Amino acid sequence: MGRSLISFSNIPLKFSHIPRSFLPLNHSNQCPFLKPGNNSLSGYQKVSVLSTKPGRKLCTKAVLSETSYQKEYPKIGAKSTGPIPPSQLIQVVETAAKTGAEVVMDAVNRPHNITYKGLTDLVTDTDKNSEAAILEVVKKNFGDHLILGEEGGIIGDTASDYLWCVDPLDKNSEAAILEVVKKNFGDHLILGEEGGIIGDTASDYLWCVDPLDGTTNFAHGYPSFAVSVGVLFQGNPAAAAVVEFVGGPMCWNTRTFSATAGGGAFCNGQKIHVSQTDQVERSLLVTGFGYEHDDAWATNIELFKEFTDVSRGVRRLGAAAVDMCHVALGIVESYWEYRLKPWDMAAGVLIVEEAGGAVTRMDGGKFCVFDRSVLVSNGVLHAKLLERIAPATEKLKTNGIDFSLWYKPENYHTDI
Amino acid sequence: MGRSLISFSNIPLKFSHIPRSFLPLNHSNQCPFLKPGNNSLSGYQKVSVLSTKPGRKLCTKAVLSETSYQKEYPKIGAKSTGPIPPSQLIQVVETAAKTGAEVVMDAVNRPHNITYKGLTDLVTDTDKNSEAAILEVVKKNFGDHLILGEEGGIIGDTASDYLWCVDPLDKNSEAAILEVVKKNFGDHLILGEEGGIIGDTASDYLWCVDPLDGTTNFAHGYPSFAVSVGVLFQGNPAAAAVVEFVGGPMCWNTRTFSATAGGGAFCNGQKIHVSQTDQVERSLLVTGFGYEHDDAWATNIELFKEFTDVSRGVRRLGAAAVDMCHVALGIVESYWEYRLKPWDMAAGVLIVEEAGGAVTRMDGGKFCVFDRSVLVSNGVLHAKLLERIAPATEKLKTNGIDFSLWYKPENYHTDI
Repeated sequence: MGRSLISFSNIPLKFSHIPRSFLPLNHSNQCPFLKPGNNSLSGYQKVSVLSTKPGRKLCTKAVLSETSYQKEYPKIGAKSTGPIPPSQLIQVVETAAKTGAEVVMDAVNRPHNITYKGLTDLVTDTDKNSEAAILEVVKKNFGDHLILGEEGGIIGDTASDYLWCVDPLDKNSEAAILEVVKKNFGDHLILGEEGGIIGDTASDYLWCVDPLDGTTNFAHGYPSFAVSVGVLFQGNPAAAAVVEFVGGPMCWNTRTFSATAGGGAFCNGQKIHVSQTDQVERSLLVTGFGYEHDDAWATNIELFKEFTDVSRGVRRLGAAAVDMCHVALGIVESYWEYRLKPWDMAAGVLIVEEAGGAVTRMDGGKFCVFDRSVLVSNGVLHAKLLERIAPATEKLKTNGIDFSLWYKPENYHTDI
Repeated sequence: MGRSLISFSNIPLKFSHIPRSFLPLNHSNQCPFLKPGNNSLSGYQKVSVLSTKPGRKLCTKAVLSETSYQKEYPKIGAKSTGPIPPSQLIQVVETAAKTGAEVVMDAVNRPHNITYKGLTDLVTDTDKNSEAAILEVVKKNFGDHLILGEEGGIIGDTASDYLWCVDPLDKNSEAAILEVVKKNFGDHLILGEEGGIIGDTASDYLWCVDPLDGTTNFAHGYPSFAVSVGVLFQGNPAAAAVVEFVGGPMCWNTRTFSATAGGGAFCNGQKIHVSQTDQVERSLLVTGFGYEHDDAWATNIELFKEFTDVSRGVRRLGAAAVDMCHVALGIVESYWEYRLKPWDMAAGVLIVEEAGGAVTRMDGGKFCVFDRSVLVSNGVLHAKLLERIAPATEKLKTNGIDFSLWYKPENYHTDI
């Protein structure tokens, strides 16, 4: 490959232990592993220095892996991408997300009907059309994979003369209805209201699709919102892509985040890394508040107040996938929220972890995408944030708030 | 000018009263003056239909002015731009803001020093350099105008061998020190810590300069932040420009808002208008929390909670001038905050008013830029928002919180 790789393990390691010519430097010619006013590399378990130019000195590129905080917080990413190679899987994931994003961009550029009804229709249509476009890409490439879509999407054969329009009470009700329809008329087209489950539950791969994350922002033309596609292998995130819509009226633009388990995180093709801020007082944070205004909602208003008091600020932007990508990009230190759905989180959590960050539940426990709370951070701040967030969350559990897994397709096999 | 102007006054006016060919249409071919499901133009006091193509039918452009809600809330804009024509004034205001923005964009694109000290220096340097660039434009064009800069800027002759570095306790202390220095050594260069007052207090024009609004966002690379330049004539906003930095890492971009008193508001040269949303439940809102965590801060946390509960959401973005421009752009319905400074507000409030919105204090009283609270909205929602915001603010006043004018240069003449 014309690449050399040198690894330093058993850190803490003194600056002086590494030959100067091996020092990993970032594009501003500084060593990102050195803490200000300190020449120790402690805190990092392994530093790999990678040269892309054979025969030249090994200081051009650095890969940071297995930092000490990742020992404390179990990895949430899949151990591998399974039988499908990472490069093939991420290519389909990115294509799917970008195909959905094209549908959204068309809607962004279309003059809005000013009526409320018109606006609601625009949101609904865009959501559904984006999901249909994404599902088509997935099904074309991996016909036997299981798909969990926010919008229920379109299931079956569009050539069918029969269209089943299903408006069930909830997800479980829909799943039951769909099963009956599919068993009897496998080739009929089905349009479901709730997050439909499509495909073979025996598949190791589960695609979690949010065709339009941040619909309120989208409806108002307020940046940001996103298309989010994450695929699980045996229940754990294996590949992810998030297309973020930035800028707003007069200057819409997109930015694409992607990651594969063990392969790092990228934005527009450039490797990204979480921030190194290790003090709450110097951190910029972001959170979200769901539609259900119950005890968990009230607890998070309290957390918002507490952290607004002690940090540089708590932002409230309104799109979970975007907020997580912003942690991965290093422009905020942490994001948390109660009651997100798998399609809100599956892509974002992997992108954060692969950018060097940490992901847990808000009580500090090991996270999976079917959990009802998530805390992502740059890793070095995680324990300090949990000092306040975990007790508040434990109290909700004590008060009987349901934190059991949800939206997990019943027969989908996981190693969780 | 090759332009014809036809005005309809004494509205309410029925749709049918206007010849179809005179109907003002927006770019999606809808008449923005018609409410959904209603053919009445009531609510608008005056509708002007302006044709830019002589001899053609008069339906190409519409100017909306003096809507009924603006009767309820007194205008905060200056009656005129004084002896300087609007076109000349706005040209200098925009040039000043864009000159500052160039300094900020240079810093955005420069690789950041990762140390905290380095970051602090970057922020401080960018703030100061942006202000210096802005002041140079203003002083070159209007040497006798009074300037109120957030950063204190650089006062005097840069050719001087003497540099006075002033680190006063507060603004009043600085003003007193500066006066002594200038009286004795008029050609010396002065660098002030606090918002310095520069120029002739006998001037009718006061420039309110925020060289970098949203420094926390800037420091973190989190969009948005802005350069804000507003100029008052006899105490009231006469012309304004805000250059917003949008997008963030991998896709930075800018968007320029501008307005003159009575001349409308623009974004990147296109006329903009506030939203028409008239229900709190359908509104998207935004607020801010200042550095001082006192009773007013706690009250606003309560307001954040209340409105998060009843609206589509309350955003928290972190740059006052940007938030106000977003109201003008129609992507959020309202913004409020306690304890902003004149340089945070002078440009934004005019842009909102000229985009058809309303501006008052948070107790509902007539606003001036030296006030310690501001509520801007799309106008139609203003009264409904004040129902909750005004009593909370009155309570603070009852409890002795100081809402007197501040940062008003002592001898600056106003008609407030």
